[in-house]
Amino acid sequence: MSNSHSVGVVTPQRVRFDTPLALKSGASLPSFELVYETYGTLNATASNAVLVCHALSGSHHVAGTYGDDPKSAGWWDNLVGPGKPLDTNKFFVVGVNNLGGCYGSTGPLSINPENGRRYGADFPLVTVEDWVAAQARLADHLGIDAWAGVLGGSLGGMQALEWSLQFPERIRHALVIASAPKLSAQNIAFNEVARQAILSDPDFHQGHYVERGVVPVTGLRLARMIGHITYLSDDQMGEKFGRQLRHGERRFNYDVEFEVESYLRYQGDKFAGFFDANTYLMMTKALDYFDPAYDFGGDLDAALARAKADFFVASFSTDWRFSPARSREIVSALLHNRRRVAYAEIDCPAGHDSFLLDDRHYHALLRAYLENIAV
Amino acid sequence: MSNSHSVGVVTPQRVRFDTPLALKSGASLPSFELVYETYGTLNATASNAVLVCHALSGSHHVAGTYGDDPKSAGWWDNLVGPGKPLDTNKFFVVGVNNLGGCYGSTGPLSINPENGRRYGADFPLVTVEDWVAAQARLADHLGIDAWAGVLGGSLGGMQALEWSLQFPERIRHALVIASAPKLSAQNIAFNEVARQAILSDPDFHQGHYVERGVVPVTGLRLARMIGHITYLSDDQMGEKFGRQLRHGERRFNYDVEFEVESYLRYQGDKFAGFFDANTYLMMTKALDYFDPAYDFGGDLDAALARAKADFFVASFSTDWRFSPARSREIVSALLHNRRRVAYAEIDCPAGHDSFLLDDRHYHALLRAYLENIAV
Repeated sequence: MSNSHSVGVVTPQRVRFDTPLALKSGASLPSFELVYETYGTLNATASNAVLVCHALSGSHHVAGTYGDDPKSAGWWDNLVGPGKPLDTNKFFVVGVNNLGGCYGSTGPLSINPENGRRYGADFPLVTVEDWVAAQARLADHLGIDAWAGVLGGSLGGMQALEWSLQFPERIRHALVIASAPKLSAQNIAFNEVARQAILSDPDFHQGHYVERGVVPVTGLRLARMIGHITYLSDDQMGEKFGRQLRHGERRFNYDVEFEVESYLRYQGDKFAGFFDANTYLMMTKALDYFDPAYDFGGDLDAALARAKADFFVASFSTDWRFSPARSREIVSALLHNRRRVAYAEIDCPAGHDSFLLDDRHYHALLRAYLENIAV
Repeated sequence: MSNSHSVGVVTPQRVRFDTPLALKSGASLPSFELVYETYGTLNATASNAVLVCHALSGSHHVAGTYGDDPKSAGWWDNLVGPGKPLDTNKFFVVGVNNLGGCYGSTGPLSINPENGRRYGADFPLVTVEDWVAAQARLADHLGIDAWAGVLGGSLGGMQALEWSLQFPERIRHALVIASAPKLSAQNIAFNEVARQAILSDPDFHQGHYVERGVVPVTGLRLARMIGHITYLSDDQMGEKFGRQLRHGERRFNYDVEFEVESYLRYQGDKFAGFFDANTYLMMTKALDYFDPAYDFGGDLDAALARAKADFFVASFSTDWRFSPARSREIVSALLHNRRRVAYAEIDCPAGHDSFLLDDRHYHALLRAYLENIAV
């Protein structure tokens, strides 16, 4: 590999679980498979394992490349590798495609054993709690009693937090980045518009589009365009595109006029070309439902009393999807429970997507925290 | 009328102009009609006329009711009437449906004289400049040499600003509320997603849906849902809906789960039931294109040097669509040009939509400013 800090060429693995998994919704999956990748080496006491949880459109492919194609680098490759902040010389890092995903784990694209057809919309809604329960099966399979750390951004951060609540003895450090203890009404509203775009696409066919050989491209494209606006900051969009005209002059028609339109259309088209619409719907619902305080009358302090892990929490100044105020809610509740918390609000212009960038200050903080974890 | 401060029962009027109107896009309208309403009495010197400009979904029906139906009250009825801040005992108030609108003025729903068919998508794109040019024809028709004031919120505020630039001698006071000197990249991005929702609706038929007896309801509904999120503040959505569940418990399906979803769907359905899709598209483009500094190399100070009016500018603390910072850009450029400017940033929780509410402080400021206008 040309990149000496890359984990190099990686190969996804697959594991099957045949014990039924009871889901939060009341439904149950008789069996399921998870696709995952690992980087680094699990030490003899299995004390150096870190789980990286993905957000809405991520996957198990966190780091490294497939074959020699540099374009196939994992989605958090800037963070994970030998000598990188999440150092694979020290840690055994695990990435997993969540249940219901569309990258190989059991989900809407899988065959429903009950009728031999693809699940499609019949795949049950899965929640952050369900993902963590499934990830615990993977930990068992890998011989990991307790994670040194569970790390994630956005929806991934919710999984890290949920690990500390559902399996307090099985996680030593939770790293919760650009996340929130629950969605706001505005967050849900954006998700709902994205869902309605997909659900009302004539090619959606009540979620059984694959059987009909079509894809609700239009809805998925709109959903991604809406999402994309919320991932970037107003300022950064202004810096990146401003009011720059595509053709240098105004043409007064509905073709691309401003560069930002071109960018959004491109992002929407690209995403609609590979992501599964049922998975997208489900991911947005998992976001909506996440609310650890739900069973505690809305009392987040009470909800987080179960946690025993140490925490690293980080937010970004220009993130208006999950603003620093949302991270502070988590920090405050953790402090009320006398947890050890490292917290940083990082000045970064890139909005919610900042968590995926290699901002120097951000990565230095993560590196310092991770270096300090004993294995 | 039970409401003693109402202008009472009103009747729209209609005027036809047969001199061609050259549009900003280069196209020309051979003739056009405007629908308008007036409240109060024009004085002998025609010095007491105030034009109220509407925003994206507004109309000429600013105040009063049709027949006895209180549900038919005009969209700014809380502001306009005898004894109200825009006092019809003093002022002669004019509301007009803009060119390209769908409430009776010539627009996409009108018959194209060239071929006897509805314009649909063949209606030329009209801009804020074009609207003001058309409104000037209406002023001529009404015998109004100069408006005592031109008033508008949001896109309506852009028209008030444009009046001061295009016809500096014909406007004494410009009242620019919850507006901006031009859209940001993020503003354009939201408009673009709304447009794509409509343009990609299979019932859109390249804008000639009426001839086919259909309406792109799905796209229009999504467009309105997206818009609605940007009209409200995050805080107000939180207060109004929070995470309140529709059925008191989670049902884990794609029906309405949270109240905010129900609200958005309702708003979308309602709007899609009466608003014209081509008009919506055009309105968003008028917003995108508005940029008085465009011909001045982006220099707003230079662009506003033409203005001779006095100004009232107001913004709302929780408006994230056109934040106070955007109003301050206007105020700053006006001050550099030694214009007289009254400016207020009003604490109001209702986001962009605040400009339509009868917030006490806001209305008191408007009243004080308008009372001070000599007629």
